[in-house]
Amino acid sequence: MAETRKDWRTRLHETIYEANTTAGKMFDLALLIVILASIVVVMLDSVPSIHQRYGDTLFIWEWVFSILFTLEYILRLISIRRPWRYVFSFLGMVDLIALIPSYLSIFFAGAQSLLVFRALRLLRVFRIFKLGHFISEIHFLKQALKGSVRKISIFLLTVLTIAVIIGSIMYLVEKRQNGFNSIPESVYWAIVTITTVGYGDISPITPFGKLLASLVMLIGYSIIAVPTGIITHDLAIAFRGKTALAESCPNCGFEEHDTDALYCKRCGSSLEVSAARPGGD
Amino acid sequence: MAETRKDWRTRLHETIYEANTTAGKMFDLALLIVILASIVVVMLDSVPSIHQRYGDTLFIWEWVFSILFTLEYILRLISIRRPWRYVFSFLGMVDLIALIPSYLSIFFAGAQSLLVFRALRLLRVFRIFKLGHFISEIHFLKQALKGSVRKISIFLLTVLTIAVIIGSIMYLVEKRQNGFNSIPESVYWAIVTITTVGYGDISPITPFGKLLASLVMLIGYSIIAVPTGIITHDLAIAFRGKTALAESCPNCGFEEHDTDALYCKRCGSSLEVSAARPGGD
Amino acid sequence: MAETRKDWRTRLHETIYEANTTAGKMFDLALLIVILASIVVVMLDSVPSIHQRYGDTLFIWEWVFSILFTLEYILRLISIRRPWRYVFSFLGMVDLIALIPSYLSIFFAGAQSLLVFRALRLLRVFRIFKLGHFISEIHFLKQALKGSVRKISIFLLTVLTIAVIIGSIMYLVEKRQNGFNSIPESVYWAIVTITTVGYGDISPITPFGKLLASLVMLIGYSIIAVPTGIITHDLAIAFRGKTALAESCPNCGFEEHDTDALYCKRCGSSLEVSAARPGGD
Amino acid sequence: MAETRKDWRTRLHETIYEANTTAGKMFDLALLIVILASIVVVMLDSVPSIHQRYGDTLFIWEWVFSILFTLEYILRLISIRRPWRYVFSFLGMVDLIALIPSYLSIFFAGAQSLLVFRALRLLRVFRIFKLGHFISEIHFLKQALKGSVRKISIFLLTVLTIAVIIGSIMYLVEKRQNGFNSIPESVYWAIVTITTVGYGDISPITPFGKLLASLVMLIGYSIIAVPTGIITHDLAIAFRGKTALAESCPNCGFEEHDTDALYCKRCGSSLEVSAARPGGD
Repeated sequence: MAETRKDWRTRLHETIYEANTTAGKMFDLALLIVILASIVVVMLDSVPSIHQRYGDTLFIWEWVFSILFTLEYILRLISIRRPWRYVFSFLGMVDLIALIPSYLSIFFAGAQSLLVFRALRLLRVFRIFKLGHFISEIHFLKQALKGSVRKISIFLLTVLTIAVIIGSIMYLVEKRQNGFNSIPESVYWAIVTITTVGYGDISPITPFGKLLASLVMLIGYSIIAVPTGIITHDLAIAFRGKTALAESCPNCGFEEHDTDALYCKRCGSSLEVSAARPGGD
Repeated sequence: MAETRKDWRTRLHETIYEANTTAGKMFDLALLIVILASIVVVMLDSVPSIHQRYGDTLFIWEWVFSILFTLEYILRLISIRRPWRYVFSFLGMVDLIALIPSYLSIFFAGAQSLLVFRALRLLRVFRIFKLGHFISEIHFLKQALKGSVRKISIFLLTVLTIAVIIGSIMYLVEKRQNGFNSIPESVYWAIVTITTVGYGDISPITPFGKLLASLVMLIGYSIIAVPTGIITHDLAIAFRGKTALAESCPNCGFEEHDTDALYCKRCGSSLEVSAARPGGD
Repeated sequence: MAETRKDWRTRLHETIYEANTTAGKMFDLALLIVILASIVVVMLDSVPSIHQRYGDTLFIWEWVFSILFTLEYILRLISIRRPWRYVFSFLGMVDLIALIPSYLSIFFAGAQSLLVFRALRLLRVFRIFKLGHFISEIHFLKQALKGSVRKISIFLLTVLTIAVIIGSIMYLVEKRQNGFNSIPESVYWAIVTITTVGYGDISPITPFGKLLASLVMLIGYSIIAVPTGIITHDLAIAFRGKTALAESCPNCGFEEHDTDALYCKRCGSSLEVSAARPGGD
Repeated sequence: MAETRKDWRTRLHETIYEANTTAGKMFDLALLIVILASIVVVMLDSVPSIHQRYGDTLFIWEWVFSILFTLEYILRLISIRRPWRYVFSFLGMVDLIALIPSYLSIFFAGAQSLLVFRALRLLRVFRIFKLGHFISEIHFLKQALKGSVRKISIFLLTVLTIAVIIGSIMYLVEKRQNGFNSIPESVYWAIVTITTVGYGDISPITPFGKLLASLVMLIGYSIIAVPTGIITHDLAIAFRGKTALAESCPNCGFEEHDTDALYCKRCGSSLEVSAARPGGD
């Protein structure tokens, strides 16, 4: 009896947490559709004209999704060995945050607006790639971006420093009457400008302010190239690394190389493999 | 007699559908000019001041082009073996959509405004490359972009997910009185910001909203590098692949290699060819 | 006597048209300063508040520069063998266009505003590189960009086609009351959006218009990667080509290779030279 | 006694100027926190609503930081051998500029607003990398960007020239009533457009102005690729150079190569090392 129960639990675990079995793939797909539908409902309910006409229907649907997500949460809890680990995991927290607003809204009016946090469940959308053939692409992109994170964060720190310095100077130059109300707002303007977003809600009025802004734009225009350069470079490295490790020696076919080997142990040929050729695609 | 007719049909097919013969090139060029002229006429007619003064002349020209396109459509139908295949092909549908509004406008006033769909015929503009020497470039770009489509679509899905999550949070932060009227509009704002377009029709007012917007801009500024990296990388691969396959062995001149060969069958030299060297330019 | 005169002419030619001699470098530098000064004068004169106070002084300076440029033009004419060739060359036309407005303004009031075309003389600024050590960099960039022009023009044609099609559809969707007054203006909006400039002078109002605009932005965000990829790639090719041709065989030192040689004629070593290593920099 | 004093001075020097010892790291970290805190205080004080409520508290904090920075400045002066060299160094000037406004504000009302120059001290933020493991990344980026500076400056000069020429023409086309008040402002508009910032504070009104603006945008959209291409390329070069020099011969292990060696002195193998392989990650 104990074994049967364990068996049932294992099967449930496989269905909910993994995507290898048919049941698991079905569950992932169904969950994705329900998540998307629940987000569409929350989105539509936020549009005033739709809320007025279909508010009641959408209210019912919101509760239907809330109950479905509650069931899913309970199933996740009982089918896993260490439930607390799931509860405190990132996705576990997101699942809980998506549930709470519905129940809070019974006691506190207005808590319903927190339903927008359901959008966070969208992060599960990336499980869709486990259903398709995107695994190698996503793995490849992940690896390349992981290598870039450090360099990109140095870059963002530099941009922020420039934004704070230039924002402070612009606050002195343009003064409050021209929309640069405070240093934080001037820094916000500097970020809007360097990133080339350019809302135009704040823009320089004085000639010197415009000159300074032109300089900031040219700087932003030049340094946008830096993250691109970094990622392009790291993609090339990631790709080169991948194929080289995936292939056997092009000369003698020997396959058991050390992970840091550049040349074939047995025949001395280079293990560097042209990225484009093998197997076509 | 039957043979002559078949001959006439084949020649018509060659002229209309292919671009190898002189007649075919002439037909493509003439068609392109007529399409461009018809679009210019539709465009000018949409400008209120021009419509008031030259509306009658433009009306006549629109019918001239409609009749020319109708003739072309009939010729395309009778010169092809399986007309239905053309009718239901993408370009066939476009050709039909470009025709219908003129005839509809006889029965329904206002249907004329659908003439703007004639712009779709512009897609035939790419036939111009068959007239010039652009074929290798366009083939090269096509191949490189085809390889990127999957990775770019993963990227766009990520951007969309970020836009929905951030749009939802901004809706909570900024509220309706600041222009973030509904979640869909906030998501629209998030896309405007991440892509660095930045119209400024909706922009954050509260300090926390501006802080969040600054974060979104810096994220958008960093991740714009990802598609660039992907395409740069895939262009390099496509180019490397192309030259390597186009050349014979640099060592012994042997030319009959398998498509997946990395080294010369006969002498063992690498077939990887430096992209810049062969033949200059 | 005839020889002395020829000598004087040759020396004048060297000074004005070339930059190898000290006199030539001095002339180029002086001309550059005069051009910059004349443009600053035209610019300042266009600012209403400065024109009111210093209009008379600036007027005198404008005539000083006009006379200097007239003298330069005459010197260029008499020091060159085939004057007509200079007159009808691109820079010759620019020099003439920079002169005419001053003399026209004697007869026609308002012709002075054409003085802005003096800005075209700024193109001579690139001669500054002949004074410094930028020649190799500028040659390198030129070569790389020349190879990209064809691919970039295909890309721009694609962007234009997309802009016309999307602009036409947006004209139907948003209608005149929302600022999309005519198809040409809608196409202008589409270009503003795809290039991520985003002025915000025209922006979609209807929900469907915003959805369509979001799509356009995501398309623009993705395809901006294409020219970058092309240029990055062509820079790599140009650079690789340059060093490889500049070096002798790294193995045996043999220097007389064919321009399309990939391997050393004499010893068979690869002539592909690592771009970073030789001589440091 | 003299020796002890020298010892005390050397230790102070090590703590303040270097980051090798624990005391030095502690000092750098503490200084960074104080700088960030002082900038936050200046920023908050510039917000009108915060200034009204907490102005007095922030005033006290500003003086606390001023006294701390004065102490730091004195310590820096007495712990270094050649104090004048520090005073006239870039960071020394920044440190002084951050101090002066506080003391000036005793005599001149309003001098306090110059406190925004404290933001310049943020440049010391980059010392944080000496505390972590970012040194190799920052060195790598620095080297790559140093190589790009020349090419990027040629690029920026080209962009500026285009902006001046196009701005001048737009001034003629759009005239003053459409916001293009003077040539300098039109040039400002041209820079806003080419860099794809697009505030929308000035935008073309006339059809011909919009056509010209569309051209400028497409140009800006295409040439943004140039700095990206340059930096991507130089990053690749910098990286390739780094690893190649860091490794011993992959064939025989010989390590004492000349800095410009492309092939191993002893065995003739290429010293070019695949960037991705050695040591994984």
